[in-house]
Amino acid sequence: VPTQLEIAMDVMIRTFHRYSCREGDRFKLSKGELKMLLQRELTEFLSCQKDPELVDKMMQDLDANEDNEVACNDYFVEQLKKKGK
Amino acid sequence: VPTQLEIAMDVMIRTFHRYSCREGDRFKLSKGELKMLLQRELTEFLSCQKDPELVDKMMQDLDANEDNEVACNDYFVEQLKKKGK
Repeated sequence: VPTQLEIAMDVMIRTFHRYSCREGDRFKLSKGELKMLLQRELTEFLSCQKDPELVDKMMQDLDANEDNEVACNDYFVEQLKKKGK
Repeated sequence: VPTQLEIAMDVMIRTFHRYSCREGDRFKLSKGELKMLLQRELTEFLSCQKDPELVDKMMQDLDANEDNEVACNDYFVEQLKKKGK
């Protein structure tokens, strides 16, 4: 029987891949995919934000190697930083 | 109503804090706390590992600032790296 933590990790990884597989590199989020994920899956977080350039700024923060796509690890770190604030 | 992703993030953060608050810095995992978390919450992952020095090695990997404790973000990145393999 998986623990709550194992289930949670599985949900996070599956959610990432559900969006990352839509266009471009199947294992990375493009800006459009990131935006869609935020709008659909982190509605509560987004509803507290008033910055119209939020997605652009997150993309810049997340895109360590500047290929305009976000890898799985980077994405989670950023989510957790936002959530922890 | 929170999404699956929001619930998963909440579970991960709560799990971290349930162990990090036991000794030393309440917001960081000591080696003992990390070991307990792995043994109780990631049993499936641990059961696939045969390296008796696993916890020591993870601690070294995770402890970026070498204070023998692990901060929340580092912990999640490492979990996800392991899971992704």
